[in-house]
Amino acid sequence: MMDYALLLRTFLLRSARYFPKKEIVSVYPDSIFRYTYGDYYKRVCQLAHALESLGVKRGERVASVALNDHRHLELYLGVPCYGAVLHTVNFRLPQNHLVHVLNHAEDQVIFVDEDLLLFVEMVKDQLKTVRQFVVLSHTGKMPATSIENIVLYDDLIKDFPEDYDFPIDLKETDPALICYTSATTGDPKGVVYSHRAIVLHSYAVATTFGAGESDCILHIVPMFHANAWCGPFAGVGAGCKQVLPGREVINMEKLCAMIAQEKVTFTAGVPTIWMLLYDYLEKGGKHDFSSLRNIVSGGAALPRNLLIEFTEKYNFPIKQAYGSTETTPLVTAAIPKSYMTDLTDDELYDIRCSVGLLVMGLEMKIVDDDGNEVAMDGKQWGEICLRGPWIANEYYKDPERSAQTFIDGWFHTGDVATIDEEGYVRLVDRTKDLIKSAGEWISSVDLENTIMAHPDVMEAAIIGVPHPKWQERPLACVTAYPGRTVSADDIREFLGDKVKASWWIPGDVIFLPEIPKTSVGKFNKRELRRLYADGELKSL
Amino acid sequence: MMDYALLLRTFLLRSARYFPKKEIVSVYPDSIFRYTYGDYYKRVCQLAHALESLGVKRGERVASVALNDHRHLELYLGVPCYGAVLHTVNFRLPQNHLVHVLNHAEDQVIFVDEDLLLFVEMVKDQLKTVRQFVVLSHTGKMPATSIENIVLYDDLIKDFPEDYDFPIDLKETDPALICYTSATTGDPKGVVYSHRAIVLHSYAVATTFGAGESDCILHIVPMFHANAWCGPFAGVGAGCKQVLPGREVINMEKLCAMIAQEKVTFTAGVPTIWMLLYDYLEKGGKHDFSSLRNIVSGGAALPRNLLIEFTEKYNFPIKQAYGSTETTPLVTAAIPKSYMTDLTDDELYDIRCSVGLLVMGLEMKIVDDDGNEVAMDGKQWGEICLRGPWIANEYYKDPERSAQTFIDGWFHTGDVATIDEEGYVRLVDRTKDLIKSAGEWISSVDLENTIMAHPDVMEAAIIGVPHPKWQERPLACVTAYPGRTVSADDIREFLGDKVKASWWIPGDVIFLPEIPKTSVGKFNKRELRRLYADGELKSL
Repeated sequence: MMDYALLLRTFLLRSARYFPKKEIVSVYPDSIFRYTYGDYYKRVCQLAHALESLGVKRGERVASVALNDHRHLELYLGVPCYGAVLHTVNFRLPQNHLVHVLNHAEDQVIFVDEDLLLFVEMVKDQLKTVRQFVVLSHTGKMPATSIENIVLYDDLIKDFPEDYDFPIDLKETDPALICYTSATTGDPKGVVYSHRAIVLHSYAVATTFGAGESDCILHIVPMFHANAWCGPFAGVGAGCKQVLPGREVINMEKLCAMIAQEKVTFTAGVPTIWMLLYDYLEKGGKHDFSSLRNIVSGGAALPRNLLIEFTEKYNFPIKQAYGSTETTPLVTAAIPKSYMTDLTDDELYDIRCSVGLLVMGLEMKIVDDDGNEVAMDGKQWGEICLRGPWIANEYYKDPERSAQTFIDGWFHTGDVATIDEEGYVRLVDRTKDLIKSAGEWISSVDLENTIMAHPDVMEAAIIGVPHPKWQERPLACVTAYPGRTVSADDIREFLGDKVKASWWIPGDVIFLPEIPKTSVGKFNKRELRRLYADGELKSL
Repeated sequence: MMDYALLLRTFLLRSARYFPKKEIVSVYPDSIFRYTYGDYYKRVCQLAHALESLGVKRGERVASVALNDHRHLELYLGVPCYGAVLHTVNFRLPQNHLVHVLNHAEDQVIFVDEDLLLFVEMVKDQLKTVRQFVVLSHTGKMPATSIENIVLYDDLIKDFPEDYDFPIDLKETDPALICYTSATTGDPKGVVYSHRAIVLHSYAVATTFGAGESDCILHIVPMFHANAWCGPFAGVGAGCKQVLPGREVINMEKLCAMIAQEKVTFTAGVPTIWMLLYDYLEKGGKHDFSSLRNIVSGGAALPRNLLIEFTEKYNFPIKQAYGSTETTPLVTAAIPKSYMTDLTDDELYDIRCSVGLLVMGLEMKIVDDDGNEVAMDGKQWGEICLRGPWIANEYYKDPERSAQTFIDGWFHTGDVATIDEEGYVRLVDRTKDLIKSAGEWISSVDLENTIMAHPDVMEAAIIGVPHPKWQERPLACVTAYPGRTVSADDIREFLGDKVKASWWIPGDVIFLPEIPKTSVGKFNKRELRRLYADGELKSL
């Protein structure tokens, strides 16, 4: 067989040649921009010339600090197909982390959205390698800025030829993108994605969800978040229509309008967005979900009651999936098997509330503290370990933390889970968030989900706090729905017959107006622990 | 990213671990055999031990001379996952070719179906490398045979352990299968498939047709025919139910019963079978096609009227696809694009009668005699050239013919085609079957299809024959439907306004009781040319 490298180039050329009429849509606060893969390809070619003119060399990193729009999508394919590496930056990182990742990746050029220029402006004097700033602007106006070597993206590319000979002599193991995890301890850790990993992962996404050319993908998940879960790449390869909502992603009315008007079939996002959507729907928000075929939720667990309500009340059938920055990210998806048609609704929700089955192409083992695989009984806990062609084998330029995580050819996820006899995985906790009380483990995630099933509770985060007698005890941090109240006793009573043992029930419950979150919207337990240690965690 | 090889092992382990309850069904003349992927895995493990016990070394070839059943499916995964190479033999090859391929591949062991033992018996004394014969028997009885070193498959494997540590240190470029083309000139040519090619191709098949775990695949296409188009591999990887019809594949009543009873969703085959099916249906044959989602037809063109009748009369919506032994085989599939909903029925059939769009992952160019790409206008002819990770780069141990076919990194298919502005490819002819009349080209395939649209014509094959004035002229060889008659004048009159130019109309029409076919069911034009040259081609 031919020694033909798996490169994103093949995907890009296919969309240009066979789907030049298909649409790409960017939604802005005041307008909607539409063009085709034919137009897209021409600008991606111009971008490649522009990178060349800026002296960007093969393998060098350039950063995007950007929202989800078509210019970002041009960078997504253009930079890797040119032979450079796109560093998708989470602009919500703390400032010191932002500086760290831009310097650590040695970014040569920063492509920054006009609305996000401030984030870059604030750190620009600390950047060691950036030679050029490029503003992604849909208004066409250069924002006021103190940065000197700065140019508008459209001006940068506009005079270059509309074709480009994308290199075919890249190796498939060459880097295509780099993304940093939102670190809970220490600096963010970089994960480098090869062309090979992204191409294979795109096939896996398409295969897992049965997606193809007839899909219209709405990119809710930010494009700085683990390759936007590779929807953009699979979308280009398959010739899908793509809708990019930019900052309007948190405008639920507009999001619902996009779904209805553009006939979106596929979308993916984190529970934070689904909770906003649920709130909008509960208030009678206008919507038409009839075109939707796949709605993927990942990044954190969606409470069971929400999944049920979405399905039954709104015909918005979310599928949970699991992965991480280190896994490109798709690992499992909660799709019932074809022979499960006889299950009761409750049993089906049990499956849909798992994180699902391993996708085709990976290997997984769930191991106890001694490294032995746990039984597939849905009960025993173990750490998820993974290997496969789209699983990282190191953190970028970080041998020390790499050695702690990538052991004997397996990625140790730090996620504790069970696996049932059908192969469905259920997350129990992060290894570091488990609570050890009187020598027995308590799952903080289990407790959180059980508390969040209380009708008045919007969010609940559990941390373990030191206890003189029991070593550790769970502390519940709870936020009620706006306008509702709930007491510690209410919660303890509610938990009564729902937890695995009475000693799981937290003695202490603290009420907060909001649970602190990380830059990707997860509960920031590290911050909660810090507040607790500093004596600052108290009910408000 | 991890250096994790793309091996069939990953597919095999996934089915054993996550889909042990899913079924594999073999249909025999007198019985139906059912077992699960759980059972399947155990026997594949036993087979691996058996191969070891027979001294089969890594990379060595073992042959299957077999029909489509579960034992053959065990060989399909077991042999490559063990590290050896499965040579799937077309038992319908002429005897000298059969000897050639078995010796050329240096097969160490032959696994032969009890019903096909005769084919092996006839050539056994000419085999140079075979050390062991193994009979695949569902009756459990050793057939009468003069072969000495022969054993029943079930006896061979039965005492071995039901688990096996399948090697993960194979390279993804290591050979997994080998298949020989049915040669029209010279000896058959061998194509070696790597693990990598088959894994990637399986993803491509699943992605192209939106296939997954919920599919039930009926394997109509013989498993000696280009990896059965990789349905068995994609099926194992995805955990699909698989139905293997064995010799009952030509029993249309039984085939329809399988589709209805097993709720088949996916099947693939050559037009020869679809014509048998059509005949059965036209005679009022019982059928229920409601479960079918994908019916793939390849290997030759299906006449347009048949495709329409299948769709409209029988709700049996065939999708044409294109590929060859050298391409693993999927290259294109005739699926209309999502925006083509406004097309008339006639325009949609135009698309469905093409061989389709290039699948995700390959590159194609259609070039004229000077090697320039032809315009995407649906008119200009050129030869299809391909490259990609599941396209062959050589014929096995045949540098001379390899050099004629694999040029500058492209596979020159020998197929002449047009490509329209939407990217749909239409086969015009084989380069060697084109007819040059008065300096202008005539497509034998076009002419054949036009003649076969005549209601009384069952089959038509066109060859070019020498002509003193016009260099070459088309000669039509025609078979009428049983019980019907048609004359040369009828045909010429029928062609009148349907061909591109009046000089396309054949002066000579010969009527035959049957068109000679190759071992894979294609018109044997080489034989027709030989008969003509020998003066033996005349109407009967």
